[in-house]
Amino acid sequence: MNTRLIDVALGRQPADAVIKGGILINVHSAQIYHTDIAIADGRIASIGPLPESVYGQATTIIDAAGMYLAPGFIDAHIHIESSMLTYTEFAKMVVRHGTTAVASDLMEVTIVSGVEGMKEVLRESETTPVRLYYPVPAFMEESHLQTTGSTLYPEMMEELIQLPQAVGLAEVLGMPLLAGSPASAAILALARAQHKTVEGHAPALRAEQINAFAGAGINSEHESTTKEEALMKVRVGMRVLMREGSASTDLLECLRAITEEGADARRCSMVSDDIDALHIKQCGHLDHKVRLAIRAGIDPITAIRMVSLHPAENFFIDHECGSIAPGRVADVVFLSSLEDCRVERVMVAGEMVVEQGCLIKQIQAPEYSGLLMNTIHLKRKATPEDMVITLTDQKRSARVHVIGASSVSLLTEALEADLPVRGGVVEPDVANDVLRIACVERYGKHGGIGRSFVKGFGLREGAIAISVGHDHHNITVVGSDPADMAIAVNRIDELQGGFVLVNQGEVLYELALPICGLLSPDDGEAVADRLSEFIQKLETLGCRMPSPNVTLSFITLIFIPKLAISDLGLFDVTQFKLIAPVISST
Amino acid sequence: MNTRLIDVALGRQPADAVIKGGILINVHSAQIYHTDIAIADGRIASIGPLPESVYGQATTIIDAAGMYLAPGFIDAHIHIESSMLTYTEFAKMVVRHGTTAVASDLMEVTIVSGVEGMKEVLRESETTPVRLYYPVPAFMEESHLQTTGSTLYPEMMEELIQLPQAVGLAEVLGMPLLAGSPASAAILALARAQHKTVEGHAPALRAEQINAFAGAGINSEHESTTKEEALMKVRVGMRVLMREGSASTDLLECLRAITEEGADARRCSMVSDDIDALHIKQCGHLDHKVRLAIRAGIDPITAIRMVSLHPAENFFIDHECGSIAPGRVADVVFLSSLEDCRVERVMVAGEMVVEQGCLIKQIQAPEYSGLLMNTIHLKRKATPEDMVITLTDQKRSARVHVIGASSVSLLTEALEADLPVRGGVVEPDVANDVLRIACVERYGKHGGIGRSFVKGFGLREGAIAISVGHDHHNITVVGSDPADMAIAVNRIDELQGGFVLVNQGEVLYELALPICGLLSPDDGEAVADRLSEFIQKLETLGCRMPSPNVTLSFITLIFIPKLAISDLGLFDVTQFKLIAPVISST
Repeated sequence: MNTRLIDVALGRQPADAVIKGGILINVHSAQIYHTDIAIADGRIASIGPLPESVYGQATTIIDAAGMYLAPGFIDAHIHIESSMLTYTEFAKMVVRHGTTAVASDLMEVTIVSGVEGMKEVLRESETTPVRLYYPVPAFMEESHLQTTGSTLYPEMMEELIQLPQAVGLAEVLGMPLLAGSPASAAILALARAQHKTVEGHAPALRAEQINAFAGAGINSEHESTTKEEALMKVRVGMRVLMREGSASTDLLECLRAITEEGADARRCSMVSDDIDALHIKQCGHLDHKVRLAIRAGIDPITAIRMVSLHPAENFFIDHECGSIAPGRVADVVFLSSLEDCRVERVMVAGEMVVEQGCLIKQIQAPEYSGLLMNTIHLKRKATPEDMVITLTDQKRSARVHVIGASSVSLLTEALEADLPVRGGVVEPDVANDVLRIACVERYGKHGGIGRSFVKGFGLREGAIAISVGHDHHNITVVGSDPADMAIAVNRIDELQGGFVLVNQGEVLYELALPICGLLSPDDGEAVADRLSEFIQKLETLGCRMPSPNVTLSFITLIFIPKLAISDLGLFDVTQFKLIAPVISST
Repeated sequence: MNTRLIDVALGRQPADAVIKGGILINVHSAQIYHTDIAIADGRIASIGPLPESVYGQATTIIDAAGMYLAPGFIDAHIHIESSMLTYTEFAKMVVRHGTTAVASDLMEVTIVSGVEGMKEVLRESETTPVRLYYPVPAFMEESHLQTTGSTLYPEMMEELIQLPQAVGLAEVLGMPLLAGSPASAAILALARAQHKTVEGHAPALRAEQINAFAGAGINSEHESTTKEEALMKVRVGMRVLMREGSASTDLLECLRAITEEGADARRCSMVSDDIDALHIKQCGHLDHKVRLAIRAGIDPITAIRMVSLHPAENFFIDHECGSIAPGRVADVVFLSSLEDCRVERVMVAGEMVVEQGCLIKQIQAPEYSGLLMNTIHLKRKATPEDMVITLTDQKRSARVHVIGASSVSLLTEALEADLPVRGGVVEPDVANDVLRIACVERYGKHGGIGRSFVKGFGLREGAIAISVGHDHHNITVVGSDPADMAIAVNRIDELQGGFVLVNQGEVLYELALPICGLLSPDDGEAVADRLSEFIQKLETLGCRMPSPNVTLSFITLIFIPKLAISDLGLFDVTQFKLIAPVISST
């Protein structure tokens, strides 16, 4: 209890600052009205009417005439690593869009650099204007299916869920849970005992599975891709995190559960899951989602609630943030237009950090330790032979599995194709966009390589490789020419992470991601521009995906149906097992 | 995690029961639609569509055709002792009105019989169909202002807040909190550390006090008596518990914050605070409040939410109850009319306990221990002289304080009157309804008697006495004739608690309350009939209050402005001190 807040509210002491003349978006009462706001010790002391005595000699008066005042925006589900920015650069970029808190499980950093690496990022976050809440990733050892740098074990969860930043469990997997896995039950019990939330991960659920998921104790879910899924999740009492990411644009579809089906939005939030720096530069962050929602027919107060009060309620932290109300941290977004969610100024914990849309505070990224740097260790240089699938010399044709990649969804299709075999090597079918894909182990453990075929990238020539690949972050490469593919992989090794485009033996483009092999040290604008260049270059080679890097980095995720690839091979998500890439051959 | 719920939802196992053909009031999506509901192990397994395989040979099919299905009703703030029924008889009475859970701090039992007495009632509750949640009363030692049988000390709070039934702190007092009391801060920190809610008690607050109260960390409040107060509490993010009690009918006024001011109802609940058996018999319980709300223009789904989802959210137990959704306890109210909230059947934890509005389950109250019985111990018999205020013989007239009692609000007015003094005794003014009031210590500690005058009861003759008097439960008596008053007090002593009406030396009416001096062992209907008889008898003597017993039992509450009385004297709530009953005399 901060007695200063009481004293300022009662007019016994002057406030540190008063925001005067603004139009409050009150997310509790769902009203918009003029009122002044008193701030003390970085928190809201009073939302008015204010006693005259809050104005002292040292009180800063902030003129908010004509401005709408929204609570700082909160992203309830984002993997900040997908921005390819350090936490510091990410924060600097999104705070200009009104974001003052995110919930991020830092799973990618943890997979590569372990819990100590993760804690380094937690500490880094404290020097930025974007508060980091930590839902503990529920991923568990799957070393028979994929190779990682580090993993979490059940016995580590108890410490992690008690970290001060910990707000629950993230992404508890649907399949083992519905199979009654004792490990899943144990971590759920742990979260419940700590009064923290449990987020599930279960894409493409049918109604009965959604019921089962809710009955098991899952509180929230972010994988809805249809309005029917979103509606059913609302009905069973889940918190529905509606996603608008770089490569999974599910928001408008999910919002139809509200606008068309009439479902109440009170347990719905808008989240990013995975967005890269280019997406942030071009579209924004949660402000973008608010604009989309309003244009889709969502009432503006509801849209603001879906990025403030609702995410705060999702994590049981609405006494701390998510509204402009007494006791909450003074995170305030000043909007010159509500309909367009135009962010002019942003106050974080009582301090103005954004003015006229620009960051006015100096924020420096720390030096990163050896835990986060130098994390790529190929067992040996990749060769063209590593990239291909071979059969016996006699074979002339093969029927193969093909991962069907989508540019708008993380779900993949399970396709098949008949491919020619020449000299024992199964060849791609470039004319029909069936390309080679390989995933190369990068932790120096055993040098395994998974191989298959992929459709959707449209590359007529060349190869792209990337060291971001959920949830193991081995190096994935797509192309037709095995030589180009090998060069791209080896170049990533030299860069200590990144993504690389190679054509006819030449590196056409590269972006280094030397922090964990996931993040660039550069600022958001620079990374966005480099990404844009990458996409343009790829376009000249035939790839028309809006976020090919994000799409590629999710093809490796063995928890999203239907097909995925790891360094240990092609993975059938529905059967949840590794499968041979070749179905039959003649 | 109950894997059976998962198995039933997925259709791997048959359900215990299926409610078929009903119209679900889905408080999550705010929709009303036909669906079937599968139940297993006393919980909701699935809200449909159900897989065919939930129907097994042993599955009970419950036909709900034409019935609306609401979640079991929850009263988020009720002092069950005010019913004057044992917990068992209270539960039997209210479950017929759809109530399946209440939050009750059992403060009255604790004041009289201590923590062990309270725990006896907690145990009793487990054999009834109404689940008892326990918000720990935050009342503290005030022995210089009133005398109690027992009290709570700060060091007891830590044990109590960890009881399995504990859901938070109840009625943290506004005044000490706003004064920055370290004791208040300490119990708030305790509740926060346990992730439990903190309910405040602060009637008649102005906007700046409401801000201060919220900023201090108070989550909910139940004392609003005007729409402005209710609206301001919604705006600062508090949960507003709108009260409709026997003697404090604030609901319709508070609902105007929603219907007239447009405040969102999502943090609003409807509660009873204090209702007696007669009120329950005549009006019902939460079903009555739903009817009132719908008639006041609240949409029916919102009205149902205000007695189900919202109270559950108030206590952070919405994963356990408050909705018909997977994982929740299967508490289901079958309504033949939604507009009239007509309760036909009630299922509690999967078992049908009410059919056609009647209890079909045998429930027996336990034997009560000595802790709860024989609790009235007058230091000595009361005499007529005990009842009067004396001055020196020379005085002819006195200006006195008069407690202005209201029949519709717990707030009292601070009135004054000029009274004649005869033979040194200040006389009442019966013609103007200014009567004597006295409060007699009943724990055998010191025999103190507080004395003053009261207006509002309208008794032309006779005296009424009662052993229920918040928050100390000494014996309060009102009347004009000191002899009648003394007889009434002494009769309560003989009865070991109750209330008694005496006129011209004769006991006209009595109701024994031998359990803690607060509760009758009889069933609810009998107590209601006896109460009705009491009120009729009082009417013949000029008293037109709808619930004179409740009104009288709150005149003793030193936390409700403006005047109160304890065994230690007249109390000025605004100044928070004992004051002399006589202002001046000539």
